[in-house]
Amino acid sequence: MKKKINIGMIGTKFMGKAHSHAIKDVSMFFDLDVEPVMMTLCGTAPDLPDLAKKYGWENWTSNWMDVINDPKIDAVVILTPGFLHKDMVIAAAEKGKHIMCEKPLANSYSEAKEMFEIAEKNKIIHMTSFVYRKIPAINLAKKLIDEGKLGEIYHFRALYQQDWAADSDWVWRFDQKQAGSGSMSDKGSHIIDLARYLVGDITEVVADSKIYLNEKRVPKTEEMREVTTDDACMFITRFANGAMGLFETSRISTGHKNYLSFEINGSKGSVRFNLERLNELSVYLKDEDPSIQGFRTVMMTDPCHQYMSNMWPAGHVIGWEHGFIFEYYEFFKGISENKNPNPSFEDGLKAQAIIEAVIKSVAEKSWVSIQKQF
Amino acid sequence: MKKKINIGMIGTKFMGKAHSHAIKDVSMFFDLDVEPVMMTLCGTAPDLPDLAKKYGWENWTSNWMDVINDPKIDAVVILTPGFLHKDMVIAAAEKGKHIMCEKPLANSYSEAKEMFEIAEKNKIIHMTSFVYRKIPAINLAKKLIDEGKLGEIYHFRALYQQDWAADSDWVWRFDQKQAGSGSMSDKGSHIIDLARYLVGDITEVVADSKIYLNEKRVPKTEEMREVTTDDACMFITRFANGAMGLFETSRISTGHKNYLSFEINGSKGSVRFNLERLNELSVYLKDEDPSIQGFRTVMMTDPCHQYMSNMWPAGHVIGWEHGFIFEYYEFFKGISENKNPNPSFEDGLKAQAIIEAVIKSVAEKSWVSIQKQF
Amino acid sequence: MKKKINIGMIGTKFMGKAHSHAIKDVSMFFDLDVEPVMMTLCGTAPDLPDLAKKYGWENWTSNWMDVINDPKIDAVVILTPGFLHKDMVIAAAEKGKHIMCEKPLANSYSEAKEMFEIAEKNKIIHMTSFVYRKIPAINLAKKLIDEGKLGEIYHFRALYQQDWAADSDWVWRFDQKQAGSGSMSDKGSHIIDLARYLVGDITEVVADSKIYLNEKRVPKTEEMREVTTDDACMFITRFANGAMGLFETSRISTGHKNYLSFEINGSKGSVRFNLERLNELSVYLKDEDPSIQGFRTVMMTDPCHQYMSNMWPAGHVIGWEHGFIFEYYEFFKGISENKNPNPSFEDGLKAQAIIEAVIKSVAEKSWVSIQKQF
Amino acid sequence: MKKKINIGMIGTKFMGKAHSHAIKDVSMFFDLDVEPVMMTLCGTAPDLPDLAKKYGWENWTSNWMDVINDPKIDAVVILTPGFLHKDMVIAAAEKGKHIMCEKPLANSYSEAKEMFEIAEKNKIIHMTSFVYRKIPAINLAKKLIDEGKLGEIYHFRALYQQDWAADSDWVWRFDQKQAGSGSMSDKGSHIIDLARYLVGDITEVVADSKIYLNEKRVPKTEEMREVTTDDACMFITRFANGAMGLFETSRISTGHKNYLSFEINGSKGSVRFNLERLNELSVYLKDEDPSIQGFRTVMMTDPCHQYMSNMWPAGHVIGWEHGFIFEYYEFFKGISENKNPNPSFEDGLKAQAIIEAVIKSVAEKSWVSIQKQF
Repeated sequence: MKKKINIGMIGTKFMGKAHSHAIKDVSMFFDLDVEPVMMTLCGTAPDLPDLAKKYGWENWTSNWMDVINDPKIDAVVILTPGFLHKDMVIAAAEKGKHIMCEKPLANSYSEAKEMFEIAEKNKIIHMTSFVYRKIPAINLAKKLIDEGKLGEIYHFRALYQQDWAADSDWVWRFDQKQAGSGSMSDKGSHIIDLARYLVGDITEVVADSKIYLNEKRVPKTEEMREVTTDDACMFITRFANGAMGLFETSRISTGHKNYLSFEINGSKGSVRFNLERLNELSVYLKDEDPSIQGFRTVMMTDPCHQYMSNMWPAGHVIGWEHGFIFEYYEFFKGISENKNPNPSFEDGLKAQAIIEAVIKSVAEKSWVSIQKQF
Repeated sequence: MKKKINIGMIGTKFMGKAHSHAIKDVSMFFDLDVEPVMMTLCGTAPDLPDLAKKYGWENWTSNWMDVINDPKIDAVVILTPGFLHKDMVIAAAEKGKHIMCEKPLANSYSEAKEMFEIAEKNKIIHMTSFVYRKIPAINLAKKLIDEGKLGEIYHFRALYQQDWAADSDWVWRFDQKQAGSGSMSDKGSHIIDLARYLVGDITEVVADSKIYLNEKRVPKTEEMREVTTDDACMFITRFANGAMGLFETSRISTGHKNYLSFEINGSKGSVRFNLERLNELSVYLKDEDPSIQGFRTVMMTDPCHQYMSNMWPAGHVIGWEHGFIFEYYEFFKGISENKNPNPSFEDGLKAQAIIEAVIKSVAEKSWVSIQKQF
Repeated sequence: MKKKINIGMIGTKFMGKAHSHAIKDVSMFFDLDVEPVMMTLCGTAPDLPDLAKKYGWENWTSNWMDVINDPKIDAVVILTPGFLHKDMVIAAAEKGKHIMCEKPLANSYSEAKEMFEIAEKNKIIHMTSFVYRKIPAINLAKKLIDEGKLGEIYHFRALYQQDWAADSDWVWRFDQKQAGSGSMSDKGSHIIDLARYLVGDITEVVADSKIYLNEKRVPKTEEMREVTTDDACMFITRFANGAMGLFETSRISTGHKNYLSFEINGSKGSVRFNLERLNELSVYLKDEDPSIQGFRTVMMTDPCHQYMSNMWPAGHVIGWEHGFIFEYYEFFKGISENKNPNPSFEDGLKAQAIIEAVIKSVAEKSWVSIQKQF
Repeated sequence: MKKKINIGMIGTKFMGKAHSHAIKDVSMFFDLDVEPVMMTLCGTAPDLPDLAKKYGWENWTSNWMDVINDPKIDAVVILTPGFLHKDMVIAAAEKGKHIMCEKPLANSYSEAKEMFEIAEKNKIIHMTSFVYRKIPAINLAKKLIDEGKLGEIYHFRALYQQDWAADSDWVWRFDQKQAGSGSMSDKGSHIIDLARYLVGDITEVVADSKIYLNEKRVPKTEEMREVTTDDACMFITRFANGAMGLFETSRISTGHKNYLSFEINGSKGSVRFNLERLNELSVYLKDEDPSIQGFRTVMMTDPCHQYMSNMWPAGHVIGWEHGFIFEYYEFFKGISENKNPNPSFEDGLKAQAIIEAVIKSVAEKSWVSIQKQF
């Protein structure tokens, strides 16, 4: 008889659907050592009961403290805007509940640090949902780097391009107080995390950002409200291992919906990835017969690739949502083995340190060192 | 209170997993008018109880008649090798159960005809699981054709390339008695169905096929068994509307895992698709500013595309398994509205007529007309 | 002091420009053992003297017998419509002149046979301008096959898609008497030659073809003239070595301007090529580390590739016209070494045998064996 | 009778071949109003006479002053390392000779300024060979921007990636005194020029650069010599029109031979280009039917595209060298019409101002304004 893990989730929108789906779906593909139970969904949507039913939750509440205070609940999933993360995480951690928290972990480094420390102190399992780490193609990139197949890493460059903000009405993401920053934290935190995961620590950064569309119409009103978060951000970094980094985030990059792409060049090889073709990794290895050298498109569906022997036969592609399924596999494995998986709150905290340096670099128009101590 | 639809499924392997997953997952994305209940899983796997539990089934049995004879069961899913389809379908239809049957519908036209007629007679909802019809990109191709955007259709060409059989041990698919034919029916039925769906009826065919690897080792033995089904098949067709068709199937096409691709050229435009990038459709329209004419890669993730407003925001790609989810959405909608969705048994039957003509053309080394009456 | 090779060229249009350019340009890239002299251009264009000057010819004439009868001329280039080839070739060969002749070599097998025999008898150097053989990417495909890197060849499939005929006024290519056939010989001869070059002899064929656009307006008139050559042609072949072949040609394939593409699947690997990206060959090899297996895009610009050390540094792509430059390098090398290069008239003849079988297969609606003796 | 333009060229290596070829080839494609005469080639190669003959030059000399002092010579092409440009340009301009000079125009802004001023003063036709401006795909990008099809420009990002320096022995490009800087000027000047050409003036820059490989072996010796020019450079810019820019150059970017790529995002559309597929431009336009929106691959071979009606029929791709042919068409047209074409020395000068700012930004580790006056 497997141990049940009773789950409470705070947040019902896009992320609420993605996380609910993953929790419901994960045991279809993986033989877990625990049995996740979708106990309580918390949100403010008017159709909360219907949503809860549709997504497979037993109960629902509009008061997040109900989730925290429910002694039956073992793990909490926090999907709210960033400014709410800290209080929820601290409350849950103090009750000893395991936590999956959406990225960015917080709206400031100091908040994130407090969250990480309290999680560690309470010995809970904690993850920051940098979900793209779990995509098999990115895992292969990591493996090639770790095995030295790419040699010394020279360059890392990543783009995260979207265009939803070009025509969007006012949403909370346009407000600096709620969102912390704009594309730079919302999208930037993902590629910063991938940079750290794949290449290593970042030591210095210089950045620029801009708000192109200065005001947005508040939905269902004639009110125009000021936009206080960046539409786009560019930054150059230095890595501790000597690599150079180049980053760009944009929410007004016309033609791109969710285009996270990166390339890594090392002394022995290179890799390229883009999220809209997430079943592929492009790999170049220098030490090959020159007459057939070239970037190869590795189809990531073969069972030899991480997680894929649990999915479908070779050639049957997976979708964006499967990253969450893999993430929850790691979360539940972490709980069952009492061993914290990555990306943890520490990863969330370290990404936050870099985001803050980016913000500071823009404000001061200068290079900024990442001096935070962990 | 939604009406419950109790389901029995016969088959537990690759397709058993795909169909179970879809039934479990469909209500996460769609607001169904009925409530599917995963009642009984039938199979011969030694770990059947575990599989049933993992996939979400309430009961299990190794006797398929248990499924047929259970009066509580409303709908039956049949996923066995082709030679078993007929008896199961007839038994289920006579009990008035709705049926989802994997493709090819049968191993012969006469079997398929009997199945279709009994299904019609018993007024059940019936589908042949030509799942690729439900991929949004293929739906867009259909829409462009139906709206006349591609003009008169000149050419249809489709490949279905796999390479699993190159190194495979003996499996039932290598036996003509169990499988009917090889790549030509297993893979060919999919592209024949797409040809019919997108372009229309096929009137004549000339074909060639070949067995390259004449024997296979029986697993766990030293026995070599003769291969009696084709490794590859090529055929040329004429369509009723004047278009020409070109088809190839192969299970030894090195480098391809599940590469279904097609191109359609019409007097006003062309489309291209491949299943390994199923979130994309390549579209060329002739009546555009010549200076920017070209094949465009339509990302199929926008909410304007079929089913996609029920999935994730734009740019978040779906996987192969979602075709089954869309298929079950149509199946349950068909049941709830008492209106047969496509692809029905009639589509399975018509594909079978063409497969038989292909087989005959190979045997007689000549053009063969599709003369079957429906 | 290099020996001069005086050249006469018959034909001034598209091909006249391409061949003139290549003869003028070849010594910029290659150290030839002979010195080509562009002596006489023959054509019927009203602006012939201007064209001759522009393309670098010393003299010009509108009577092709002037070229044949000029004792100073060592080599003749024949670029006229197919029905004129035979007389010109025979006249030139009898005068002992070397010959470069455009494809298809003739409008019938018997004509081509006569041409080949007279060329051999007169011991001239002769080439059929199947220019695509000389593209480095195709040379690499040939090398991989010859070295056994692709193993036993299973499948060859080639498309040659254009769309110029969809909107074109009447030209000689629409007339069966002048052109022999339509897309099947004009485009088909190229892919038939590549099939022979890369895979080997074809033994049997079954084909279909169609005229979709039955009449064309004669330029500058109101006259509509009947089209008597095929718009599109599809055929299946068997090769002597056991491979299966699939071919399609079309001049009404909307969206494609000069899209010659092929794929070859062998037991150990596969290659893919398309002429619109002629600097690339896509290569898959089965015997590699499974975790990084995939089709690789080989950039053909590295100096290790055929002819490329004579061109530009790696990464600097070549264009369509360079095939002709490489072809003339071989032609002049053949003359200087008195050794016939490929593709010779024999290759032109063998392609013609297959084209005739295709035509016969369409007419008789049956499989046709290639029984011609060489 | 066309006026003859007698040309002297200084430089015989890679660029000597490219420019010689273009001058020889241009009149094959274009009807020039002048007649270029390849009079004198100047260089220090031991096989200079052979090179001159091969490339089509009438005379040769190893003393560049011979070219300058020859009163018959009308135009001089300067292809030497950057530190030699100034003296040659000034000498030629003072003799009233038209000048084509390779990029970067000089090794410093002050040198470039002097060169530009003396060229203007002597009323000669002058070009800086930023050859990529003349590629049809880039011309189409320019046209789309100028016509407002992309709307307000938000982002410009460009990479110029090569990997030749990873394994190279010591060459002059590794020496700061001869080359000025490394990838940042050699490659950077090209993408800076494209940025200026396509988007407009750059006002501020922040940059980082690095030497990864600190010493190189001097060919044919055991001596290791210090590398004093950058292997890679990254910079962020602000444009006068409000756009943000992101740039990277590298000569150790494994897997890339000559990979110049850029993307431009505007409020109404986006374009993407890469030099290894220079016959294509990827275009996205926002104001289209949403159901078929996507990046389209425009094949640049259609006669409607700039210069292409002078080349081959649609679908017949051009190569890298054709940029030079187009450049010389403009140069000779400029001479014949006495109207300076772009890119002129002014463009070379303005690029130099930005390169100097990049160098200064690296040295001072700060943002630098482009304050040069023109």
